[in-house]
Amino acid sequence: MDPVKVIEIKKSIFEDNEVDADNLRKELKTKGVFLLNLMSSPGSGKTTTLIQTINLLKEKLHIAVMEADIDSNVDAVKIKEATGIPSIQLHTGGMCHLDAEMTRQGLDNVDLEGLDLVILENVGNLVCPAEFDTGSCKNAMILSVPEGHDKPLKYPLMFSICDVVVINKMDVLPYFDFDLEKCKEYVHMRNPKAKVIPICAKTGEGVENFAGWLLQEVKNWKN
Amino acid sequence: MDPVKVIEIKKSIFEDNEVDADNLRKELKTKGVFLLNLMSSPGSGKTTTLIQTINLLKEKLHIAVMEADIDSNVDAVKIKEATGIPSIQLHTGGMCHLDAEMTRQGLDNVDLEGLDLVILENVGNLVCPAEFDTGSCKNAMILSVPEGHDKPLKYPLMFSICDVVVINKMDVLPYFDFDLEKCKEYVHMRNPKAKVIPICAKTGEGVENFAGWLLQEVKNWKN
Repeated sequence: MDPVKVIEIKKSIFEDNEVDADNLRKELKTKGVFLLNLMSSPGSGKTTTLIQTINLLKEKLHIAVMEADIDSNVDAVKIKEATGIPSIQLHTGGMCHLDAEMTRQGLDNVDLEGLDLVILENVGNLVCPAEFDTGSCKNAMILSVPEGHDKPLKYPLMFSICDVVVINKMDVLPYFDFDLEKCKEYVHMRNPKAKVIPICAKTGEGVENFAGWLLQEVKNWKN
Repeated sequence: MDPVKVIEIKKSIFEDNEVDADNLRKELKTKGVFLLNLMSSPGSGKTTTLIQTINLLKEKLHIAVMEADIDSNVDAVKIKEATGIPSIQLHTGGMCHLDAEMTRQGLDNVDLEGLDLVILENVGNLVCPAEFDTGSCKNAMILSVPEGHDKPLKYPLMFSICDVVVINKMDVLPYFDFDLEKCKEYVHMRNPKAKVIPICAKTGEGVENFAGWLLQEVKNWKN
């Protein structure tokens, strides 16, 4: 038996995503639920980072996760097994991103009553998800060391819309030509206000900084 | 002065991409030019792999490269400097993929006379480029070890349309939980005929196998 709920997301029929997104944010504000949109390339460690973050926060906040993937539900299963929190899988059926309407289809399957935080793990893609406001309260992204420090030059929009850039896989820094200072400089070229947080999701090192930022943002949202 | 030509690609106005793609392939066949479409996630090592491959083949074939990127021209400059072959940059203006018409806009800026091989480095993205036939003769992709061996499960279409899957960054295998045998199994689930070629583009190890495959394909195409 499949241990997680799988939702087949339908293509949005509404035209104005910005209006949809703003409406969704207003609703979430009224309900006191904070929605985080987490983005990255495939394989940068979104799921592992989420597991570590949730395990640091789950005594302080009521959390649920929506895992978006084109196919497969390995991530939602992993999150549920490793953290015990409610986790559902959204299948995009080949679509490369989620917009606000699609995010709402997912949220319709989450019991928001009493929840503080919903984390949306977007499709692994540095291009398209950046173009669509999901209705999230904040955007975060993960860039992993093996991907290279030049990515803010090549994927400008993604870096410009993210409030936080988590730099993952810091443990393998010695084996790659990755310059953290240069990376920070490039991120800030795109978005001077972006917070850059180096972590190693595998060992958990630095994850408390990301969790701390998230906890504060949820508190701000609820006040 | 900018040392490479930069082409601003316009959105396609034609509707039937499959027809466009077939027409482009027929034209390339007549001209005896082989077009390779190379795809991958951001940061998997497309440009480094290309440089090594081109340096192995440039005495045997006349080659040109088209580097597609949303913004920036660092890759086209790198290719030109490291190999000396003609290299142009295609700017997609935020678009997440290239279709056949967009590929043709690029090819219109390449002198095809006497060329054997044009390599198109597609936008770094495992989702959208898989959905659009560029008119290429063969598709290749790179998956790098840090991305994880489960990617064929999550990005089924990309793996199913590729004739070759190059596994890059084999030098860092000891530092990651990457199972090469499992990866091959997952690739072949998606596409039983796909060739899987492990390499390390940084050191050049194994690149001769990819170059050998490509040389043979170009020869087959021209006969």
